[in-house]
This record gives sequence, C-alpha cells and structure tokens, in this order.
Amino acid sequence: MPALINSSSPFPEPDPRLIRIAEDLKPKLNKTAMPALEVIEVERDDATILGWTKKHAEKQLHEIPPLTSGQQFIVDFGDHLVASRLDFDVAAISHDIEPADSPARIKLTFGEILNDVAESFEPYEGFLSKAWLPEETIVLQKPYVKPAPMAITNRYAFRYVKFEVISTSIRFGLRFSNIVATAVSSATRDPLPALTFSSAEAKSLSLLSTDFDLLRRIDTVAIATLRDCMQTVYEDGPRRDMRLWIGDLRLQALCAYATFKDYDLVKRCLYLFAAMPFNEEGLLCACAYEDPEPHTGGNSIVDYSLLFTNTLLDYIEASGDQETGHDLYAIAEKQFHLALRRVGEDFIYNVPVPKDLLGGGEWHFIDWNEELDKSTAFQCIVIFCTKALIKLASTLGKPEPVFAAPAYNAKLSEAIYAKAFDGKAFVSGPKKQLSWASNAFAVLAGVSKSKEEGQEALKAAYESAASIKGNTPYLHHYLCEAFIEADLPELALKHIKEYWGSMIQSGFDTFPEAWDPLKPRFSPYGSFASMSFCHAWSCTPALLLRRLGLE
Amino acid sequence: MPALINSSSPFPEPDPRLIRIAEDLKPKLNKTAMPALEVIEVERDDATILGWTKKHAEKQLHEIPPLTSGQQFIVDFGDHLVASRLDFDVAAISHDIEPADSPARIKLTFGEILNDVAESFEPYEGFLSKAWLPEETIVLQKPYVKPAPMAITNRYAFRYVKFEVISTSIRFGLRFSNIVATAVSSATRDPLPALTFSSAEAKSLSLLSTDFDLLRRIDTVAIATLRDCMQTVYEDGPRRDMRLWIGDLRLQALCAYATFKDYDLVKRCLYLFAAMPFNEEGLLCACAYEDPEPHTGGNSIVDYSLLFTNTLLDYIEASGDQETGHDLYAIAEKQFHLALRRVGEDFIYNVPVPKDLLGGGEWHFIDWNEELDKSTAFQCIVIFCTKALIKLASTLGKPEPVFAAPAYNAKLSEAIYAKAFDGKAFVSGPKKQLSWASNAFAVLAGVSKSKEEGQEALKAAYESAASIKGNTPYLHHYLCEAFIEADLPELALKHIKEYWGSMIQSGFDTFPEAWDPLKPRFSPYGSFASMSFCHAWSCTPALLLRRLGLE
Repeated sequence: MPALINSSSPFPEPDPRLIRIAEDLKPKLNKTAMPALEVIEVERDDATILGWTKKHAEKQLHEIPPLTSGQQFIVDFGDHLVASRLDFDVAAISHDIEPADSPARIKLTFGEILNDVAESFEPYEGFLSKAWLPEETIVLQKPYVKPAPMAITNRYAFRYVKFEVISTSIRFGLRFSNIVATAVSSATRDPLPALTFSSAEAKSLSLLSTDFDLLRRIDTVAIATLRDCMQTVYEDGPRRDMRLWIGDLRLQALCAYATFKDYDLVKRCLYLFAAMPFNEEGLLCACAYEDPEPHTGGNSIVDYSLLFTNTLLDYIEASGDQETGHDLYAIAEKQFHLALRRVGEDFIYNVPVPKDLLGGGEWHFIDWNEELDKSTAFQCIVIFCTKALIKLASTLGKPEPVFAAPAYNAKLSEAIYAKAFDGKAFVSGPKKQLSWASNAFAVLAGVSKSKEEGQEALKAAYESAASIKGNTPYLHHYLCEAFIEADLPELALKHIKEYWGSMIQSGFDTFPEAWDPLKPRFSPYGSFASMSFCHAWSCTPALLLRRLGLE
Repeated sequence: MPALINSSSPFPEPDPRLIRIAEDLKPKLNKTAMPALEVIEVERDDATILGWTKKHAEKQLHEIPPLTSGQQFIVDFGDHLVASRLDFDVAAISHDIEPADSPARIKLTFGEILNDVAESFEPYEGFLSKAWLPEETIVLQKPYVKPAPMAITNRYAFRYVKFEVISTSIRFGLRFSNIVATAVSSATRDPLPALTFSSAEAKSLSLLSTDFDLLRRIDTVAIATLRDCMQTVYEDGPRRDMRLWIGDLRLQALCAYATFKDYDLVKRCLYLFAAMPFNEEGLLCACAYEDPEPHTGGNSIVDYSLLFTNTLLDYIEASGDQETGHDLYAIAEKQFHLALRRVGEDFIYNVPVPKDLLGGGEWHFIDWNEELDKSTAFQCIVIFCTKALIKLASTLGKPEPVFAAPAYNAKLSEAIYAKAFDGKAFVSGPKKQLSWASNAFAVLAGVSKSKEEGQEALKAAYESAASIKGNTPYLHHYLCEAFIEADLPELALKHIKEYWGSMIQSGFDTFPEAWDPLKPRFSPYGSFASMSFCHAWSCTPALLLRRLGLE
C-alpha cells in the first residue's frame, strides 16, 4: 500500500474570492415529483442491441401479491431522471392471522438501462470502485400492516428501479405503493420546442421525412442527457463520477447556450476551476469536486487546461459577460505558458509517453483509446486553443499574448503540417497512423491549407477502414464539429444519424459515456455496469443539429 | 402460498379505554451515550465454551490505517447495551494526491457475543427470518477527507460492532472515529448495589467465599439482561422478537420488583394485553406488538393466558395498586372459563397433540422441548394459576370464582396426583415420563401431599439422568422456584451456580434465550445466530438470589 498522507490537502488553498463568486452562483435545483408509471417485465431478447426488451407487466403495482423472500418487481418511471430521493410506502401483509413478526430487508437497484435491472452485477470485473454500482439494501425493522413511508436519500440516476425483497419471515409479504422519485436538475424538465424542419433546410441537408422522427428523438435524448447532468455543477455523469470536468463542461456549455440558455451555471463552473488550481504554478485541475465543500480534483489534463480558454471565450460570446473574461483571463493564459514548455525548437509539441492509463501528471486525453497516437491531434488542439486565446484577448481588448502571437501559431501550424500531412490526410507518429482525431483537430485548428484539403483529409480519415476512430462521443463530437467547420454538413448529419441514432436504436433514454455500435458492451472501465449511461460529453447533438440550421 | 388476507385485522378492535391507560404509561427511555471503548482482536480458542477469545488490538482506533476494500475492525463497548442509534464519523483518507473519488460501502455487524462478529452468518440455516441477523450495509455516497457524521438509526442490541469496508476505490481508505452508541432502557444504567453476603446467609446456604464473586457476577448479568429488555414494554429480547409475551413478563416483573422497583411498566404491559384480546371470547393473546401502534400478536398460549392472573396478583402485591386489580379481574378470570373447557369429567386437563411447533391455536408452551410430555406439568400449571386467581379474588374482596373454588381445585389436584404420582415422583403421559417440568409445577401447585414428598419428587426428577430437563432458562427458573417453594434453597443455589454460572463461564454479558451447557450451540430456531443472547426469561437469578435471602 502506498504511504498515506494526512488530511491536509496537497493542493494550493482555494482562492476565497473566486470560490465565493462560484458559491454565490450555486443554483437551487428544480424538483419534480415523478411517480413510477408502471410495473414492467424484462425479457431476454437477442434481437435487441443490448439484449433485453420490456413489456407491460400483467399486474399493476397494487395488484401484485405481497412479495416474500426472493421475490421482486421492476418499475418504470417513463424517462431518465436524477432523483435526490426515492420515496415509497411499504405495508406488511400477513399470510394468515399472525402479524408481521420480523424485520424485512429490501434491495433496490437503480437502472439507467434495462441491463442494470435485468442482469446481475456479479461477478464485477470493472476497475472502478464497486461502490459505484447503483444498489442499496435497507432494513425495515418493524414492518406493519399500514403502509409506512421509506426513502432512499442517496442520489441515483435511473429510469427503472428493481425492488427485491431479500427477506421477510414466513408469516408475511411486503406490498409497495406510492413509489415517487424526486427528480432534480438545475434545468427545467419542461420539454423544449421540438426540432422543426423547414423545406429549405430539409432540402439543403437532403433530409428525408423519415429522418425527422429520428433526429427529433436524438435531440430529445441529447437534451435529456444535458438536463440530467445539470445539477449544482455540470456533472460528467450523474450515475458515476458525479463531478465537473473541463472537457465535458465546454461541450455541455455550448449545448446549454443552444437550448436551456444557461449562463450562470457555466460561470459558476469556470470560477470553481479558476479558484482551485492543481499546483502552485496555477495549472488547472481537470476535474473539481463540490461536496461537502469545493475541493480540487487530483489530476490535470493538458488538453482540458487549454480548452478552459475556449470555454471562457464561448461563454463570453454567448452571455456577453466580459467582466468574467477580465477576471479569469490571466488564469486562462497561464495554461499556455505551462503547456508550451513542451514545444521544442522545431515547434513540435512533445506528447510524453503516458506512465499509466490516466497519463500521470502529464495526461493528454483526446479520447479513451490506447491505440490512438496522439501527437498530431494534440499539436492541433494546442493551435485550436491558442487561436481561442488570441480571440479572447482581442475580445477583451487585451494585448496579444506574446507566445501566442499569430506568427508563433503559424509556426506551430507549419511544423505539424510539414510533419503530419501526407498529401491526402494528417497522420500521426512514427507509424503514420491515420485517425479521426488527427484530422478533426487539424481542420478545427485550420492547419489544412484550403477548404478542399481539409474536406479531403477528413473524408480520408472517416472513410478508411484502417483509420483509428472514436471510442467516446467526446471525439465523435469533435469529428462532427470538424465536418461542420469544413463545410461538410451532410457528413455531420450522416454521422449523427448513424452514431447517435445507433444509441437510440439501442434504447438509451440518455446518451452513454462510451459507445461503439459494433461493440455495444465496450466500456473503458472493464465493466459495462460501471459506465455512466447519461454522460455530459454525449449530449452534443443538441448543439450540432442547431449548428446545422435545425431549430 | 396461503391465501392472503387484506389489511383489516382478524382480531377484535382494541379496547380504547384500556389502550389509553397503557399508552399514558409509555415510559420515556433513559438515554446513555456510550463510546466504543477499544478495538479488539477475536481469535479462535477451542478452550473456551463458545470457541472465541478476544484481546486488546495492537492499535487504538485512531492508529488504525485507513481501511480499504475488504478490511475490518471490531470495537468493544465494554458491556451489553441496546442502542437506539449508533453514531460515528468517517473520513476518506487518500493514498496519494487524488481525493476520494467514489462512494464507499460499509457493513456493520452487531454482536451480543463474540461469535456474532467472529463468524459468518452464512450459510444461514435457521427457520426464523434471516432479516433478524444483526447487520446493515450503508452507502456513503461522497466520502471526504474531513470526518463526516454517519448513523445507524435502526435499534440493535450489542456489545461488539464489526466495521467492514466492503468497497472504496483504489484511491482512498476510510478512517473511523467517534463511535458512540445511544443506549436506551426504561431502567437506569446506574449499577444497583452489589449483593452482600452476611455470615448468617453464607452459613445457612453453605456459601464459600469463592462463591461470592460468581454470584455477584450472575446477579449483575441478570440485572443487565432485565435492564436491556426493559424498553417501552418488557421485551422478550431486544435483538430478536422485540415484543411483549405474558410468560416472560411475569418473570421480568418479579425481577423488577426485586431490583429496579418498577411498577408502571408492568402495569402498562398488563393493560396492553387486557386491551387486545386474541378473539371475541376475550382469550388473551400470548404476545403483543406496540409499533407503530399497539396491535395483537397472532397467537395465544394457554399457560400464558392463565399466568396473566399470577402476573396481575404479583403486581398488586408488589405495588399495592388494587384499582388495576379491579379493572382487569374479569379479564383474568375469563381465561379460566376458556381453558377449563379442556378439563374432562375425570378432572384431567386434556393437552391436545400440537398441530405444529407452535401448537396452532392450542399452544401449550412450558418449554421449547419436543421430547417433553406436557400433560402432568400442564395440569399442575392450571392448579397453580387457579390458586392465584382464588387469592386475587380474595385480595380484591371479590366472590370466590365458582369454577375455581377450592373444592374444584382440590379435585384437579387429586386427579393428577392419582394419575401421575408413581410413589416417588410425578410422571407424565402413557410412557410415564419423568421430567423437571412435571415435578416443578407439581410442587408449585401444591399437588404433592407433604413437604417431604415434594422434596423427594423434585430431587428424583433433578438427579435422574433419564429425566427430561429444561432447554430454556424459563423452565430452569420454575425448577428453582420449586426448589425454594419446597424448602430446598441449597439446591436452588446449586442450580443457579451451575446453570447460570455456566453462562458466565461462556462469556455472556446478558443471559441468552436458550442454553444447555452440554450443547452450547443449541438453538430452538435452527441457527445459533437467530438466538437472542439477552432474553427476558433468563434474568431470574436477580429474583431467585434475593428470594434466597441475598440482597
């Protein structure tokens, strides 16, 4: 076991002024009482992508005979939600005249998808903590014939809940009623206007009327994903992780400007990061915790610390709040001072070989993909972010950042173009690996010399079977963002329909953290059940579809 | 599965006036904050009767390294207690710089004896509900470096608590502190004066000075047992069952008059039984439940319904409260009208063959012993209780109960004497079974013709290897009560020293529900762990020793 540190934090003290600003923006969550709608039965169905199908149970909740040891039922709340509590009533119904004469144990399992409530979590082979598995067992010490209120007060994300009676005595069973979840979000649960399809847009995007339903469903699910991640911060996943990450925040914020018109929660999150640097130099942490008091996450991701600038710029552009820009500009700029130390005299950014899966202190993320050579993509991200910094300085009337002056940025571009462009597409590393990541970020960074060159590079990466693709919707998003940037809206739309559409076909009510339609049980964490099936960085169709002109 | 009844009670409506009197007497419990005293280690030790021994752990609680998945420790509270809640603080201590990044699951196991915390409850082979096993698993959703308060709010009876960390993440462990139980009882935890041994008593009982410590310890444990069963009713066992039974109440009440000088809680319990008959004829139920509102237990025990009269008489004699006697006399008398239907023209009470372990609606208890022929003992109990009714009528100035007139009672005595006395002792049933039960109750009922005959009968039953003995301390108590009644105090004392002394030697801090020193793991319920190791009817040395003149 590693040496144990004491309880003093290894991180700099949070800046009290910045923390105060963040905490003053902490939203009061909207609460919606959501009753369980019906009892369902879940059956094995190999014709479905995830292996399960549901049907209405024969009996309604009040018709189910009292449950004895080993019996169970599953309720469906009709939609994904994040519940700050789950309330229900339990009555102990005797089989004969003897009243309930023992405690009862009740296990609840919270399912974002049917698999959660249909399959056993055992054996658990994930490498994230088993404590994340969404289940609790509670003891009702004195069951009684009159319904008694019980509650789960830990927060869970779910659409389905399995109620299992672990044990009663032989004398009684349990009848459940009034199952009501308190759904929470800082966003509204009221539905936003559905996407409309004007004939001009439909024509320009070659949309068939059969596409409309799918795109509307993708948009609805994307917005539900965003909503359920919007708590007192922009969480990455309300089922697992439950915290704020810069890379996720950027995408969530862009989606929220396009939908819920949120600015304050974004501002709160920007200030939380700004207030709690990872080290004394001022490097930003990649993630932040807020409970029971804001504290620094224990890692830093280079791309995320640079993307803080883009997030800040996006925020100012969306909200018009220049004051926040002035307040946080120096912190944004600092990240470049720190990151660009890795740029050599050849103007090539040196991505170190990761020391472990999370990259140690030099974590370069881009995607959950151990096969991916990150060097070309990363240099393009640096350029992409540096451009945002230059624009931010300009917007705020600040002097142009010396190290990021267009001239310097041009040298970074030229260096990676010379190194990575093979005449058709951008490749990466000694093996000249072709990937989505290299080409998407090359286009977003404007490294390609012309619109046509960018289009060809993107198409080459997208259409080649050997190309390294994306494992997470995060990278799929940047691919689509690049399609739009390269004026290939039809490819963006095609990809949204195919990729996010395959999630819809799989039955997701919110979009998951990682998804490969060819490997539906792929998880970056060794276990499907340790995934978050509602994940921040997967909500971006809500943005992309609007960027494509649909509203 | 048997047909299910609806929630309407199968029992008569409780009498509101009697319920009100009982509820007005509901005591406010005394609460005592009891911190865990030390961490212990429990080791296999075949030299001990129950197989385990404990020692001080090398590390104090604050010195234990933070616990990671699969690790555990055991704390000792120094004495048995019933805790309405258990509070503790939990801090998440990181192994490296990353803060706690996942929930944690913590399992607590509550041990009345070392076996509870040293052995697995699995596989559980008891036939009482597995939900009685004293364990809970709780989820700490957001562990943090600063100690956070947690609590178990279900009530448990214990001296030891095992804390097991079921899961954390690889990044942190849990440190526990401030473990404090809130002990509850309607009796005081202040120690009562220790037994003293005057030379006259010591001489008359042939007490050796080496006996003093053992007897004082027996008395202390008996009083602790009584105290921890004294809650808002006289419970039979605060670990399991947790309810009020007439047969237990009688013995507890007698002990309480001799020690805590309680009368009001006894009165409350008498009124609860009186208020909630088992059927429309007014038959008393054997047990009663009080939460969330008083309700009728689902069985009736003939001996218990008759012993209600003895309990009422004892109460009036101890408290002087004749008003309660007048209020409840008719209910007491009613039990005899109902029970004596089973007396034939030969004046022999007919004990039916039990339909199941619990005797169905015609449960005749006497002891947990399937070998025991109960006919002789039961007829003697009828006589014993009828005498109490006659005395109760006399005390209250009521007319002598017709069916219980001394003449009738004499006929019952003569009939069983003629049938069961074999010239030396009382035997029972067609196989002329010799037992403690037959002879103890024959003596208590005064069926034996002379003091010497009673003494010889008791000795014969006690000393014969073939005699059916007692499985529960309940019957051991009546044996000792008979020894005292028969003027055999030295045998009562010998038996207390041997029987309850063997429980002391086994390490009990309270006396268990069932005990056979030759079969230390005997349980009437198929599993040692489903026993209550603090049980009402086992506390009677606190009474017996005082009846023997020790104070």
